[in-house]
Amino acid sequence: MNKIKLGMVGGGTGAFIGEVHRMASRLDDRYELVAGALSSDADRAAESAAELSIDEKRSYSSYQEMAKKEGKLKNGIDAVAIVTPNHLHAAVAKEFLQAGIHVICDKPLTSNLQDAEELTKLVKDSGLVFAVTYNYSGYPMVRQAKEMIAGGELGNIRIIQLEYSQDWLATNIERDGQKQAAWRTDPSQAGAGGAIGDIGTHAFHLAEFITGLEANSLLADLDSFVTGRSLDDNANILLHYKNGAKGMLWVSQVASGNENGLKIRVYGDKAGLEWSQEDPNYLSFTPLGEPRRQITRSGSGAGPMATAASRIPGGHPEGFIEGFANIYRETADLIDAHRDKRVIESLVPTIEDGLRGIRFIEKAVASNQAGSIWQSLNH
Amino acid sequence: MNKIKLGMVGGGTGAFIGEVHRMASRLDDRYELVAGALSSDADRAAESAAELSIDEKRSYSSYQEMAKKEGKLKNGIDAVAIVTPNHLHAAVAKEFLQAGIHVICDKPLTSNLQDAEELTKLVKDSGLVFAVTYNYSGYPMVRQAKEMIAGGELGNIRIIQLEYSQDWLATNIERDGQKQAAWRTDPSQAGAGGAIGDIGTHAFHLAEFITGLEANSLLADLDSFVTGRSLDDNANILLHYKNGAKGMLWVSQVASGNENGLKIRVYGDKAGLEWSQEDPNYLSFTPLGEPRRQITRSGSGAGPMATAASRIPGGHPEGFIEGFANIYRETADLIDAHRDKRVIESLVPTIEDGLRGIRFIEKAVASNQAGSIWQSLNH
Amino acid sequence: MNKIKLGMVGGGTGAFIGEVHRMASRLDDRYELVAGALSSDADRAAESAAELSIDEKRSYSSYQEMAKKEGKLKNGIDAVAIVTPNHLHAAVAKEFLQAGIHVICDKPLTSNLQDAEELTKLVKDSGLVFAVTYNYSGYPMVRQAKEMIAGGELGNIRIIQLEYSQDWLATNIERDGQKQAAWRTDPSQAGAGGAIGDIGTHAFHLAEFITGLEANSLLADLDSFVTGRSLDDNANILLHYKNGAKGMLWVSQVASGNENGLKIRVYGDKAGLEWSQEDPNYLSFTPLGEPRRQITRSGSGAGPMATAASRIPGGHPEGFIEGFANIYRETADLIDAHRDKRVIESLVPTIEDGLRGIRFIEKAVASNQAGSIWQSLNH
Amino acid sequence: MNKIKLGMVGGGTGAFIGEVHRMASRLDDRYELVAGALSSDADRAAESAAELSIDEKRSYSSYQEMAKKEGKLKNGIDAVAIVTPNHLHAAVAKEFLQAGIHVICDKPLTSNLQDAEELTKLVKDSGLVFAVTYNYSGYPMVRQAKEMIAGGELGNIRIIQLEYSQDWLATNIERDGQKQAAWRTDPSQAGAGGAIGDIGTHAFHLAEFITGLEANSLLADLDSFVTGRSLDDNANILLHYKNGAKGMLWVSQVASGNENGLKIRVYGDKAGLEWSQEDPNYLSFTPLGEPRRQITRSGSGAGPMATAASRIPGGHPEGFIEGFANIYRETADLIDAHRDKRVIESLVPTIEDGLRGIRFIEKAVASNQAGSIWQSLNH
Repeated sequence: MNKIKLGMVGGGTGAFIGEVHRMASRLDDRYELVAGALSSDADRAAESAAELSIDEKRSYSSYQEMAKKEGKLKNGIDAVAIVTPNHLHAAVAKEFLQAGIHVICDKPLTSNLQDAEELTKLVKDSGLVFAVTYNYSGYPMVRQAKEMIAGGELGNIRIIQLEYSQDWLATNIERDGQKQAAWRTDPSQAGAGGAIGDIGTHAFHLAEFITGLEANSLLADLDSFVTGRSLDDNANILLHYKNGAKGMLWVSQVASGNENGLKIRVYGDKAGLEWSQEDPNYLSFTPLGEPRRQITRSGSGAGPMATAASRIPGGHPEGFIEGFANIYRETADLIDAHRDKRVIESLVPTIEDGLRGIRFIEKAVASNQAGSIWQSLNH
Repeated sequence: MNKIKLGMVGGGTGAFIGEVHRMASRLDDRYELVAGALSSDADRAAESAAELSIDEKRSYSSYQEMAKKEGKLKNGIDAVAIVTPNHLHAAVAKEFLQAGIHVICDKPLTSNLQDAEELTKLVKDSGLVFAVTYNYSGYPMVRQAKEMIAGGELGNIRIIQLEYSQDWLATNIERDGQKQAAWRTDPSQAGAGGAIGDIGTHAFHLAEFITGLEANSLLADLDSFVTGRSLDDNANILLHYKNGAKGMLWVSQVASGNENGLKIRVYGDKAGLEWSQEDPNYLSFTPLGEPRRQITRSGSGAGPMATAASRIPGGHPEGFIEGFANIYRETADLIDAHRDKRVIESLVPTIEDGLRGIRFIEKAVASNQAGSIWQSLNH
Repeated sequence: MNKIKLGMVGGGTGAFIGEVHRMASRLDDRYELVAGALSSDADRAAESAAELSIDEKRSYSSYQEMAKKEGKLKNGIDAVAIVTPNHLHAAVAKEFLQAGIHVICDKPLTSNLQDAEELTKLVKDSGLVFAVTYNYSGYPMVRQAKEMIAGGELGNIRIIQLEYSQDWLATNIERDGQKQAAWRTDPSQAGAGGAIGDIGTHAFHLAEFITGLEANSLLADLDSFVTGRSLDDNANILLHYKNGAKGMLWVSQVASGNENGLKIRVYGDKAGLEWSQEDPNYLSFTPLGEPRRQITRSGSGAGPMATAASRIPGGHPEGFIEGFANIYRETADLIDAHRDKRVIESLVPTIEDGLRGIRFIEKAVASNQAGSIWQSLNH
Repeated sequence: MNKIKLGMVGGGTGAFIGEVHRMASRLDDRYELVAGALSSDADRAAESAAELSIDEKRSYSSYQEMAKKEGKLKNGIDAVAIVTPNHLHAAVAKEFLQAGIHVICDKPLTSNLQDAEELTKLVKDSGLVFAVTYNYSGYPMVRQAKEMIAGGELGNIRIIQLEYSQDWLATNIERDGQKQAAWRTDPSQAGAGGAIGDIGTHAFHLAEFITGLEANSLLADLDSFVTGRSLDDNANILLHYKNGAKGMLWVSQVASGNENGLKIRVYGDKAGLEWSQEDPNYLSFTPLGEPRRQITRSGSGAGPMATAASRIPGGHPEGFIEGFANIYRETADLIDAHRDKRVIESLVPTIEDGLRGIRFIEKAVASNQAGSIWQSLNH
């Protein structure tokens, strides 16, 4: 099996998410990182490339140049990973798609809905692979949950309780030059959503991914608790799903004591399920009238979907990186299939998923501005 | 110290909450149960009285008779505990208040707002003690939380996350003659609230009790998921507090796997707190930027309020009954003080607390009927 | 049903365990406390009696006098609760047994083996009820565990892991006049065992109670980590059970961060069980090759024995006091049966159980002194 | 930085630990796998090599041939990873050391003490890097614990409680051809230790690694509960440490419900610590008289050692692979330093650590055979 030749835009030395993408790409040895436009600062781009053993000829100072040149090289990159701030996703993706290069793009897809819609069209016209890294959908027990619900083990879904809480923005660290905070709280780089964009999109996607239910409408109550911050740092949201299920979503980046508290609970008329990202190797399953059962990754009670996503036996906790690597692995399958003109089933988040996330953000903001009124998510 | 002579209305053999009241009353030996109108069925009333060693002369077949006679007896009861279905609370309470007898009343206070308001006035005019058994406010760690927030350890409160989830009404057991379910799902006995009345009032009171903040307004999305049920069995509610804090409240009696999942999380600009009724002896405290701390009942980190409410050392879990008994004990203090014409501070839920609960119910229903619109809780 | 007239020796105001006994005796309204020799200090005895509404004529300054007089009264006490330091248990019990009065005695039974054996004979000859308050055997989920093992759900028991860890004696508080610590670390009052007597006996009894297996032999490694302390404050013990099962027991009162960490894990060839006193309402059950199940008190999966020992529904945590009260209630059943000359089955710990505890202590010390050599527990 | 050229012996397709080594080697991009003797079966070796993109000229059918040829190649491997069954470790390691090649060897070091001692000498004489993959020492919170103890935060260590429990050998699966079970329960391949070798060595090393204390002596009670099994599948062990600390170690592979239950608790005169491998991102810290604190990986309370071993922020659980990768990374540091003739500090388990593990096994068996008598671990 030939390795996929990978390029990266963004992710220079010190960037968090770029390094996560690289680790994830390496874990299963399906990719080879051979080109990059790792920083808009030319010196930093060159240094970062050197550290990553990227040939200096293939370290670019602009993504436009990279896309054009790599697209024409005989052994140019097959795919590009986009790990820039949100507002650049669209333009970068467009450039590489036009050069015939597959795209792996971090979430949220873009910084505004128009970009997202245009990009969606472009992807469809191109026929190229485009993956959005909603990495939590790569966790084995998330897939176990999905499989159980699809198999009818919960019955008709009635209730979806979602939360994603952090505390790292509880004070005004963007004023002190913390870079990760600075762009996430800056509307010109992050777009309209603060916490709802940065983490709320993950929770929102996760619920739809696990339950297979589309959300119909939402209602939001957003706050910017930290003085001087213009984007939301706390959000209380109600959701209606197409089948009549009701949901709540709490998103916060100012809840002291929460590091990365993504959690989902789903209740149907037959049973309930709970999963927490901070304890990701377990799934709590509660059939009505029976004792709570703890299903473990690749242990007793785990089905084929969880097992396929596990690399190591139960009891040996898998982590964030490995879930991320599942997305990469399956994107590699898609790219291979594309090369061979085969059609395969895939769980990789698509451009449509990316689009829904942007819609979610826009509608949440709109509902809030209107005094917390229901907003449709269908259009 | 003379024991308080106690009567009880409702709570015949087999009733859950009546027996809990009796156990709570006995734990600290401050009460003596000497009279009762334990059932509207005369035979069952007499049998229940006999089982409880109540003198047959003081076992009544109507609460009206009981109130009149006990009020005139030289050694008549000092106080009455009302443990009937909700719709009778008001009439019973009125009768005993008019006979000059103190009242301990189960929650919710009444089955409609008008009754609650009238009763409130009556209590004030009478000058008698009137306690509502929001028993969760009697837990040591709940009081610890209250004390810490009052002491400024959380800073300004920003976020209140509330939930109270059960699963015992996930199917239509009221159709099968389950008595506890039957009256709670019957509007003529329970009033306008289903889950929100039965358990939502507890969560609502708890948040105000702990934070010292009054809720300003709410927004609700209620469901009756079980076919044929007219009262709510699931509720998604947003809350606004007077100081600007935002809240969410999830109430459900159809969430499979949840026995009695009352939980509160409070976040201020300095720290956060979490307490769960199913693990009541611990309080999780998360000062911003410091490791999570587990405060234990009467152990390290516990303050005087928690210690005063504890009967046994840390590590020996206290339970539901003991928290309940704190309310009784403190109501006894109030009654003693009343006898001696002393004024004392007290944490016992008052008639106003009861009133707020009814208001909460009515407004939750109203918001839902209006398509989830904000409703004031101030009037 | 007539209430049992109860007396108490020890347990004057401020004593921990005396008050626990009283609360437990009140919870189900089966006892009436009418007499006491509550302190060896006459003034303190009188004051304590007054606080407990005991008639001053029945407040005694010596237990010998109390036993003699109460034994002859027409309405003298039916039973006595002995809550003195360990070294007095034997003499006090003897006195009351000789007066024809039933005994409820705190653990450990006596402060030495000879006393225990003599007392055992005396009890048998008397035909009177004699209960030892190994209160942990009164917990609903402990009984659930017992019932499951007796029903074969674990198969043949192979492994028993026991621990009972505390930290309150991690420093030399007995030097500073802490009264609870003073007598427990004083061989003349506590007997030969420090931690192993005070808490190790509980764990030891619990394992035999739950598994129905007798321990054959033990091996111990004891320490007195705190300078100046003569009795053990930490013990590492291995156990052999009659059926070939192997056990470990860790007992410590110097393990920082442990309040009252009594825990038992049992593994058979079909399944395993775990129970922890600090989270007493749950039992973890792990059938081989199946997901872990959480059995809850009076909830799904709970059997008749747990249900019979529960006063309140699942999800409402019961506590220490209630488990204690089960012992009292069942001792009341025994006393009633005795009065009526009926024979009934009972789970109340007996004089033999008390005897085994003392043997356990003596052998643990002996093994340690011999350099950690196996000691038989059969004689 | 040039990547280290890595070879592997054992670890053909389907092997668990070989794949874990490969993933760990890839995560930080410091190694390149270029040669292998992946199976003693020539066909399987070739197929496995092809799958791993190893040049067929460098896929060997014998490790002897591989060592000789690679040792003479201009660009031959720098290091070899040995992931065969235990009994081959010594011979393979010897071959590569003699060819001047660094060694990364799985635990336990060898299948008998003599081999281990000879190998130790050989390594010392060679001056080459030799790492033993006690991978649990690579976890961030394990290092946090080590750092805290070294910094005196626990005071003098008194108590060490160790356990490592699994259940996958609760039945006789080695009879059914389960390959992982077959060699681990076969003395000719595994050596003298069953569970104590396979997992007990990890726990034993972990305690010494974390506390910095050497164990002086031990006492063991081993069982083979499964019929027909000759090696231990359950072990109850007591330990004495040089400073007077006392330890218990429970090792089991037949404890139903335990997947990979490695846990350590350490108590000093100032504080305690707890760490569990199944919840590896947290460390519980209990200073005497203060609330329990939860220290999180790279979060509040984490020190430089934990931070250096973390790749991703707190709240994003790291896993087994990442801990493993730390060992590889640090071994790479050692190899680089060796190349440059620099001396660096390292936390990588050494040949002496491997030797101690073998001694531990032999002495545990010896103690058990002698009826559970103390055995020295000093010689």
